[in-house]
Amino acid sequence: MLIIGEKINVMLKQIGQAMKDRDKKPIQDLAVSQVQAGANALDINAGPATKNGPEIMQWLVNTVQEVTDVTLSLDTTNAEAMEAGLQVCKNPAIINSTSGDRAKLETIMPMAKKYDADVIGLTMTSAGVSRDANERVAIAVDIMTAMAEFDVPVERLYLDPLILPVGVAQNQAMEVVEAIKMFRQLNDPPIKSVVGLSNVYNGTPERLHSILSSTYLVMLMTVGLDAAIADPMDQRLMESMKTARLFKNDILYCDSYLE
Amino acid sequence: MLIIGEKINVMLKQIGQAMKDRDKKPIQDLAVSQVQAGANALDINAGPATKNGPEIMQWLVNTVQEVTDVTLSLDTTNAEAMEAGLQVCKNPAIINSTSGDRAKLETIMPMAKKYDADVIGLTMTSAGVSRDANERVAIAVDIMTAMAEFDVPVERLYLDPLILPVGVAQNQAMEVVEAIKMFRQLNDPPIKSVVGLSNVYNGTPERLHSILSSTYLVMLMTVGLDAAIADPMDQRLMESMKTARLFKNDILYCDSYLE
Repeated sequence: MLIIGEKINVMLKQIGQAMKDRDKKPIQDLAVSQVQAGANALDINAGPATKNGPEIMQWLVNTVQEVTDVTLSLDTTNAEAMEAGLQVCKNPAIINSTSGDRAKLETIMPMAKKYDADVIGLTMTSAGVSRDANERVAIAVDIMTAMAEFDVPVERLYLDPLILPVGVAQNQAMEVVEAIKMFRQLNDPPIKSVVGLSNVYNGTPERLHSILSSTYLVMLMTVGLDAAIADPMDQRLMESMKTARLFKNDILYCDSYLE
Repeated sequence: MLIIGEKINVMLKQIGQAMKDRDKKPIQDLAVSQVQAGANALDINAGPATKNGPEIMQWLVNTVQEVTDVTLSLDTTNAEAMEAGLQVCKNPAIINSTSGDRAKLETIMPMAKKYDADVIGLTMTSAGVSRDANERVAIAVDIMTAMAEFDVPVERLYLDPLILPVGVAQNQAMEVVEAIKMFRQLNDPPIKSVVGLSNVYNGTPERLHSILSSTYLVMLMTVGLDAAIADPMDQRLMESMKTARLFKNDILYCDSYLE
């Protein structure tokens, strides 16, 4: 199970300010504390990065690489910033993300090929969010086809069914569960899957965030989820994740399995 | 989701003593507090009840019925005690349980017919615990066949795959998940399933009980579990249960869905 720490995100006030000021410390602190909490990869979300995108992304990657060597997941809608970030990654990175749009696929797949990067494939298009598991699978097939075309091994793909907030689209929760089951059927060995977990609790009171994300993560792991962009500092979440791994026989039981 | 409160159990020291002394109060307190915590049925576990079994079971049923009218699940290996208990139940009860043994089925099914009771069918025999999901399904079919023979509607059946302690038989955890999926395929509408949840943590340190049972319950609910004999006073467990129901669209989201 790959836990991609979500906290280096321009949308977080503290991080947005540190990016603006080119202040390394808050970013490096958050990188270290997420890895210590159990993240085995870190998302670096620079957002649209419309101003100085390439320079900011390189600064972010270098800043984080000074304190950790875990896999980095580069998260920006700015293609130049994405490529600039990939250029300075010491280890193969994760591109977060492409959609099923042809123009996006034609931009992202050559980069994935050139930089040996993994790719998160969001199963939606600019036409809108997928309504059910079948629509998600149809877009997954488009993404897989583009990977073959651009000679990127399908083993590098993480399909993302796109979680929606439970308070807004409650009936989508089981569609995502179903999509993860179906994604696995698309190839042998199974195609990997990833979710942006925190989206599930957007708009709910903070006291519900941990129980919502923990419970949903366990449901998704039950049907085969491979990775989650999530908050590794949420103790309940990490306990739930480890316990689900235990029941799935991914780790061996001992009385101290949570530690 | 049916939560059958597990706490009225002769094995609990306090309850064993109260049964011996015919002291109603500890039993009635535990009945009321379990229902208040969210149990919608109560297990009454008299164990082997070798001494005065029928009288003890009737006393237990009457004692609990004085304070609540939820469904009762009668749990004893003494067939006379089981029938005596069924005789005094005001509402149709749950017989906990039969195995796949022919002699047991021939004892239990006529009672289920006579008293309009639901039946928990443990998918094991006296030859031993089932090794995998397929063995569990084979015994499930034997139990269903006996129900047809004794004219008990299959809608009254709760199949129990028998959870084993994770510290002893870790690889059985996903066999039980698989069995619950397969049980559902045996009939349309699906056959219901139940587990004795606490068995999963037997032999583990107490600090792990809640996280183990909560996580496992969510995994089992993801694949369609209908009922659990469990501790309704475990807050984390009940929160997890309600949250899984939310994602499954069994209850509607509102900010106070946990209350």
